[in-house]
Amino acid sequence: MAATSSQSVYRATTTAPVNIAVIKYWGKRDTTLNLPTNSSLSVTLSQRSLRTLTTASCSSIYPAEDTLNLNGKPQDIQSSKRTLACFFPLRIVSENNFPTAAGLASSAAGFAALVRAVADLYQLPQSPNELSRIARQGSGSACRSLMGGYVAWRTGELADGSDSLAEEVAPASHWPEMRALVLVVSAEKKDVPSTEGMQTTVNTSDLFATRAQSVVPERMSAIEAAIQARDFPKFAEITMRDSNTFHATCLDSWPPIFYMNDVSRAAVRLVHDINTAVGKTVAAYTFDAGPNAVIYYEEKDSELVAGTVKAILGANTIGWEGAFYERLANVTAPGVALDKIDSRVLDVLKNGVSRVILTGSGRRTHLCRGPPRLRVW
Amino acid sequence: MAATSSQSVYRATTTAPVNIAVIKYWGKRDTTLNLPTNSSLSVTLSQRSLRTLTTASCSSIYPAEDTLNLNGKPQDIQSSKRTLACFFPLRIVSENNFPTAAGLASSAAGFAALVRAVADLYQLPQSPNELSRIARQGSGSACRSLMGGYVAWRTGELADGSDSLAEEVAPASHWPEMRALVLVVSAEKKDVPSTEGMQTTVNTSDLFATRAQSVVPERMSAIEAAIQARDFPKFAEITMRDSNTFHATCLDSWPPIFYMNDVSRAAVRLVHDINTAVGKTVAAYTFDAGPNAVIYYEEKDSELVAGTVKAILGANTIGWEGAFYERLANVTAPGVALDKIDSRVLDVLKNGVSRVILTGSGRRTHLCRGPPRLRVW
Repeated sequence: MAATSSQSVYRATTTAPVNIAVIKYWGKRDTTLNLPTNSSLSVTLSQRSLRTLTTASCSSIYPAEDTLNLNGKPQDIQSSKRTLACFFPLRIVSENNFPTAAGLASSAAGFAALVRAVADLYQLPQSPNELSRIARQGSGSACRSLMGGYVAWRTGELADGSDSLAEEVAPASHWPEMRALVLVVSAEKKDVPSTEGMQTTVNTSDLFATRAQSVVPERMSAIEAAIQARDFPKFAEITMRDSNTFHATCLDSWPPIFYMNDVSRAAVRLVHDINTAVGKTVAAYTFDAGPNAVIYYEEKDSELVAGTVKAILGANTIGWEGAFYERLANVTAPGVALDKIDSRVLDVLKNGVSRVILTGSGRRTHLCRGPPRLRVW
Repeated sequence: MAATSSQSVYRATTTAPVNIAVIKYWGKRDTTLNLPTNSSLSVTLSQRSLRTLTTASCSSIYPAEDTLNLNGKPQDIQSSKRTLACFFPLRIVSENNFPTAAGLASSAAGFAALVRAVADLYQLPQSPNELSRIARQGSGSACRSLMGGYVAWRTGELADGSDSLAEEVAPASHWPEMRALVLVVSAEKKDVPSTEGMQTTVNTSDLFATRAQSVVPERMSAIEAAIQARDFPKFAEITMRDSNTFHATCLDSWPPIFYMNDVSRAAVRLVHDINTAVGKTVAAYTFDAGPNAVIYYEEKDSELVAGTVKAILGANTIGWEGAFYERLANVTAPGVALDKIDSRVLDVLKNGVSRVILTGSGRRTHLCRGPPRLRVW
């Protein structure tokens, strides 16, 4: 078939990273614009382990409907407020290399990649900060996945949301020793989707306003200072406490929302037991809207933290073979003697964690295959 | 051996009930006087099911040391701040008919019985309200076990605690239809004793002050009105929400405190599913400092609530044979079809609940065997 411009397909492919908040986003003050009730801060994880790969394409030869395909499944975007409108019908194909909707911030990576891919397709000149404003409207925390390293999403003050955007507090290179060990407890879809859950909390929790208005602003300043100073114990304590406060407001919602389960709680106890045994804070847990634990630590403490987890779960647990495994490959003994860990915790983790993802902080979205190109159909 | 007055043993025996708070006590503003940070309110449970039986005796022939025996085990009271001082050496023997320290408010019943027994032994003229001031200093919530029915413990304002005492909001006879079904999840000793846990919360939770200062005062007024009006749905919602808020402040503590586990959460879900299926609020859960669920409901809804639990757990679960079982004895089908209940909940409850205690609201402490008497040794 002969190529003609009316049959051209334009496309752009990009990847985007997962980000895991250390100061959690939970609650919208404007549900249409996705404006948050409080600022939040996250660590962007390396795309060597977790990423969304998205291709946006458009062509006059496509049927006159935008389509979105996530992980091989067509999505109904006509009935969604998230629908994109454009002149040529758009096709977007997006694929995660990790379980969707299991509390691994998949929608954040997905929308960040989508916005980046569409911007690249149309060769829009926007900076990541400007794109973050767009991504935010698809999924709030997506705005943080447009940048690397340590990213703050400022709540902003304006009604139109134009000052509610993400900014890099420090690039990954500022504190490259940061590691993240994800304990995958369940890849089931969560009970209460976060979009619904957070508004239940906003509308019903009597404790919510205290967190949003007074607790988080203090923690934002403190954790930004800890990141600038690379003060891990301070970073860790704020991270753990904010995770706990966030889940406390979920429990205080009506009806109550539970994302953590007994395995999650065992991971909490493990981290406290490791820190107590070591005599300083070398590990920090955090839980998003799901039971999976993310444990932050610094590379130098790999044996103490990930080595202990490896000894508990067994070296054959799925996931240890990943990109960041080199330092642990030959570790056979726990960094912290297992008799320093609550014995019930050992059993619960061994039976409850199905796989691990060992990764680190990483860089922002990036274009995979050069500029948008014309393809002969 | 001939009886002489110098060889006399004086004794008084009393029983005291368990009380289960619907507005929780959590936090002291004065740890020596056991003055609470907030008022609380409880339902006194029937002694036909749960009680502490305590005998106080004194005699000049006893060795010169006070002794305390709980459930057959001698306690070291010499080193305890809770030690009693009196002229004749005291012997106190106390026995629960339920597991100690499993979140069933055993210390409340224990101290209430102790104070009542000692007061009876010495024929002290104090009223229950006055005795509640004494019992409070042994174990805060004990002050509520000196009265029956619906009991408020007023936080008070005075520094010496003289206005921090319990009072009956309504006697058991005001709302005798109230039933309580205890799902015993674990009779293990709790991880964090409540005396220690509550001060951790007071000292570290950023959400705690909001509950104590603003949330609880509103709830106290609302639940007292609901009790006066015998408005079960209102009573139930406040009860459930305050349990959730209390556990939220525990989770928000540093380090975090968890009393509920996956079985507790299944009980929460069960109650919400029953209420949804019935189309109105017929059941309310509450959790003390442990994983056991207490489910309040009204006698008329026995089949809907306890009947459904019986169908899930099986009629052979330990505890169904108790004093309040008559209405349920012949119930074989669940009041709410089990396909209206989350299927994971059914499994978790069946495997996680070891026994039930079916009881109702009840009356106050009472003297068992008449006035103190002289006994020939």
